[in-house]
Amino acid sequence: MTALTLDTAIKIIEAAFAKGAELKLKPLGVSVLDAGAHLVAFQRQDGASFLRPQMSAGKAYGALAIGMGSRRAEAFAKERPHLMAGVSDVSGGRILPVVGGVLIRDKSGAIVGAVGISGDTSDNDEAAAIAGIEAAGFTADPG
Amino acid sequence: MTALTLDTAIKIIEAAFAKGAELKLKPLGVSVLDAGAHLVAFQRQDGASFLRPQMSAGKAYGALAIGMGSRRAEAFAKERPHLMAGVSDVSGGRILPVVGGVLIRDKSGAIVGAVGISGDTSDNDEAAAIAGIEAAGFTADPG
Amino acid sequence: MTALTLDTAIKIIEAAFAKGAELKLKPLGVSVLDAGAHLVAFQRQDGASFLRPQMSAGKAYGALAIGMGSRRAEAFAKERPHLMAGVSDVSGGRILPVVGGVLIRDKSGAIVGAVGISGDTSDNDEAAAIAGIEAAGFTADPG
Amino acid sequence: MTALTLDTAIKIIEAAFAKGAELKLKPLGVSVLDAGAHLVAFQRQDGASFLRPQMSAGKAYGALAIGMGSRRAEAFAKERPHLMAGVSDVSGGRILPVVGGVLIRDKSGAIVGAVGISGDTSDNDEAAAIAGIEAAGFTADPG
Repeated sequence: MTALTLDTAIKIIEAAFAKGAELKLKPLGVSVLDAGAHLVAFQRQDGASFLRPQMSAGKAYGALAIGMGSRRAEAFAKERPHLMAGVSDVSGGRILPVVGGVLIRDKSGAIVGAVGISGDTSDNDEAAAIAGIEAAGFTADPG
Repeated sequence: MTALTLDTAIKIIEAAFAKGAELKLKPLGVSVLDAGAHLVAFQRQDGASFLRPQMSAGKAYGALAIGMGSRRAEAFAKERPHLMAGVSDVSGGRILPVVGGVLIRDKSGAIVGAVGISGDTSDNDEAAAIAGIEAAGFTADPG
Repeated sequence: MTALTLDTAIKIIEAAFAKGAELKLKPLGVSVLDAGAHLVAFQRQDGASFLRPQMSAGKAYGALAIGMGSRRAEAFAKERPHLMAGVSDVSGGRILPVVGGVLIRDKSGAIVGAVGISGDTSDNDEAAAIAGIEAAGFTADPG
Repeated sequence: MTALTLDTAIKIIEAAFAKGAELKLKPLGVSVLDAGAHLVAFQRQDGASFLRPQMSAGKAYGALAIGMGSRRAEAFAKERPHLMAGVSDVSGGRILPVVGGVLIRDKSGAIVGAVGISGDTSDNDEAAAIAGIEAAGFTADPG
């Protein structure tokens, strides 16, 4: 498995912010987690709300927990609300099952971590996450 | 009451993995809990996500909590969402009310523990749990 | 970094139990965690108390959190009780800062996981953990 | 009150890492919190343990909670252990009352945030935090 280095995490965040600027998004919070769902790097743009750390990390955490991008987590949450609520419960309440948590896959397809973004609409958050992952040379898997 | 020994728990896990290999399932996490909902054995196959310990145990815990396999827990969660959410709340958030938590019953019908599996679809998780319990000479009660 | 496979984890547990039998230890609970402190395998011998899952995992978790075997965690807890209590607090109460949590290091010295054992005296728990790790071809770092 | 911008937070982290390299410290985790104790930026160097996010933030959180650098928090914890344990309890367990959490003060002396570092000895963690804050043009208050 490819390791997710701090350098990679920072590249992802910077490219996500660049995408946010291009799309004129609201201020974002961006969390980059390793495959074990532990934080590698986080940045909150000026003006983003105080809870963006937890919200962005919660999208990435949920994606890693089920091994699918959070677009799938949100679909599950709509179809089987008790499923995602239960997964969040057993995680200690760490999951935000909403679009904007994107898996980072290496060339072999292995999951090396996930990016979660919160600040604008869920779809825009996701677009910035995908841009960040691709700029760093990895494959984005939004679910 | 028949005691749930470690030997039995390991037999169950190995037979569940064998079923998973036969059905070509994704990597699984398997928890075996005793009748008091305490962990006897757990194994996580290489490549299974970091949260499989809690997710698999959460299915088995929920089954033991209501004295019915987690297929019934999921049915309850659909019909009366507040019921299973509340049961999880009072347990300290330990329940995943989803198919794949199967009670282990002895010849007399007494509950001696439960198996929870997480990794593939809920139905496949349950199939592996049933195979494991039956291979160990017990009766599987999926709810 | 060397990955901690399920096969390795099981080898460690079996060799730890063999050491326990040799030393005539009380029934043990053995947790094997990966480098991100997530459970790979657990086994509880017949007669071991219901809390051995959490106690054994708590020793291994604390060792990984501070990057030193739990013999050092226990020394810190004696010298600076607020330090280990605080680390446990920020972990969500997951740490048992007591001898018996041993880091698993590969040839290069990198931490690939940790073993925690609970059931007999702390020193005996540690001896079984070391025996398990060495039998699997890794270096045991008790702190 | 001077706002703690993301640019400032990143400057602080980079200067803290530079100090760490100069002093040949172990891999560090660095959290920068605003005056409301919410995360602005975090970076974990390759090889730092999985719990460094919570440990570094816990030092900064404790400093902000009592309005004094965490050197004072640790002194309190030694003199009146129940005091810091209680403060951590009412915070939901978010405090690590140990040296290495340093208040960021502006020219007027107002608290604009705090830096928490975890990875090497507490004194070295603190030295890196002070270097980071001063490099960004603020006054470091270690307590």
